[in-house]
Amino acid sequence: MKQRIVLALGGNALQKNGEATAEAQKKIAIEVGNKIAELADKYEIIVAHGNGPQVGNILIHEEQASTDKAPAMPLETAVAMSQGQIGYWLTQAINNAFAKLGKRKKVATIVSQVVVDKNDPAFNNPTKPIGQFYSEKEATTLAKEKGWTVKEDSGRGWRRVVASPKPIDIVEKKAIKELTEDGTIVVAAGGGGIPVYRTKILKRLKGIDAVIDKDYAAEKLAELTDADIFISVTAVPNAFINFGEPNEEAIHKITPHDINKLAEDGYFKSGSMLPKVEAAARFAKKDGRTGIITDIDHLAEALSGHAGTIIAKQN
Amino acid sequence: MKQRIVLALGGNALQKNGEATAEAQKKIAIEVGNKIAELADKYEIIVAHGNGPQVGNILIHEEQASTDKAPAMPLETAVAMSQGQIGYWLTQAINNAFAKLGKRKKVATIVSQVVVDKNDPAFNNPTKPIGQFYSEKEATTLAKEKGWTVKEDSGRGWRRVVASPKPIDIVEKKAIKELTEDGTIVVAAGGGGIPVYRTKILKRLKGIDAVIDKDYAAEKLAELTDADIFISVTAVPNAFINFGEPNEEAIHKITPHDINKLAEDGYFKSGSMLPKVEAAARFAKKDGRTGIITDIDHLAEALSGHAGTIIAKQN
Repeated sequence: MKQRIVLALGGNALQKNGEATAEAQKKIAIEVGNKIAELADKYEIIVAHGNGPQVGNILIHEEQASTDKAPAMPLETAVAMSQGQIGYWLTQAINNAFAKLGKRKKVATIVSQVVVDKNDPAFNNPTKPIGQFYSEKEATTLAKEKGWTVKEDSGRGWRRVVASPKPIDIVEKKAIKELTEDGTIVVAAGGGGIPVYRTKILKRLKGIDAVIDKDYAAEKLAELTDADIFISVTAVPNAFINFGEPNEEAIHKITPHDINKLAEDGYFKSGSMLPKVEAAARFAKKDGRTGIITDIDHLAEALSGHAGTIIAKQN
Repeated sequence: MKQRIVLALGGNALQKNGEATAEAQKKIAIEVGNKIAELADKYEIIVAHGNGPQVGNILIHEEQASTDKAPAMPLETAVAMSQGQIGYWLTQAINNAFAKLGKRKKVATIVSQVVVDKNDPAFNNPTKPIGQFYSEKEATTLAKEKGWTVKEDSGRGWRRVVASPKPIDIVEKKAIKELTEDGTIVVAAGGGGIPVYRTKILKRLKGIDAVIDKDYAAEKLAELTDADIFISVTAVPNAFINFGEPNEEAIHKITPHDINKLAEDGYFKSGSMLPKVEAAARFAKKDGRTGIITDIDHLAEALSGHAGTIIAKQN
């Protein structure tokens, strides 16, 4: 039986040169698709991905050109739009990578709702800046009009900030798992998923404006689909301690306990390497599971144990 | 064994009051979701849908607020975005309809690429207006800059027009079929599908700016997934001859041969009832298959043979 892996592709993975045209992003998707297709003989594959720059541009367009007749879509729906967009690019790229290898394999993107707790403490302290920059005056007006929380962002202007709650469930988990078992490469939980919560009494799903960390969401997806390996695919081949310093050291094999200790000691940057380490370590806490942090070029090597940061209890 | 149905929801189905906010469209999606959930005991269900007003607004936003840093997405990617958007709303609405009925059933949206022939004669004569209105001068400039075809649209201004080629295949057909067989209600081929073609020699998929008729695409999906019944869900309970005239007559049961004859005789309006009639008749040409045209309120009644226009060889 093949091992099942969940890949979490970095949000900037498709815009590494900062080029945001569809054409430029599709070009990078092709490289990513080739790397993923190479793994398909040995693994069942689920691909999760970020959407930071893409949903950012969608929101900017939606907000700037909003009219009564063509009103702006809210963040949760914009996440759904970005799942369609990026999912399409990745699906097509993986389809074409198989064609190049002379193989036919099913690939499909599932639009994914990720459930959060409406009482998650994150909602009391929104921290995630999204969408365009405003002047202080515009921002405070919008805050009043729309109930937004706005904050000054590192001297660059004012922006809306939203909460980043923890993922607790994925509505489409069974469909994703069944397709995977059936031999389909599935793209899912894009952008951390469309944030939804269940209403208290009637348990209805409702969208909520928030941003779920894509590594946390992908790790949750890996748990829910009984994956063997969770891989956070990022811009660097390893997690490092003292990253960028003269005494920087790449971490190769480590236990979840030990890397969590390093995380507590502040060795990883929050909002950058820290969520990847936390997600990979959480996944690897269970016997027989492996969490990996590496870049797209070392994917195959890391899976065979010869590159990347590999987190497992027996390591 | 349950019969399998493919529903093609009209593009305006979620904007019947012309209200285009996410909130207003979600509200209508709930009504649609309730009707669909009611059928799930008796049928396997695949839901296709239009995206006219939604992709129109996405394109307007993308084009009007396009900058070098946040460039507009092309039409084919905008279709993918609309699939995420509408698919999310429908999936959530159907999920909640089941919750209301005290049932749990899997629902999932699959982002769908629909293959067209790059040599389809439609590409020589683009007819489908999309996106915003321009002045003649703006339109002719854009035509030169971007290679667009532009046309004057009924005295309302100039618009881009694109081709409406025929669907010949659906890339994700197997995944859609497998999920359906597995008991999942699948939303697929939204907006007629993301238009793609296969390159001549290497058979790579490539997106192409076009609009595929959603009834044709849904009918193709019904064929490819071995459905028993194809239903075009529109604004009226039946197809009519002499529609809106004093001598108007609703068509109830009819053979594909006879309704095709009426179509040839010009009884149905092109771009409106005609594609629905053509799609339903094409599907019903094979023994044992039924094509239905009706509105959402008569769905269950039409399926039991007591309402709607029902097209079958043995009728």
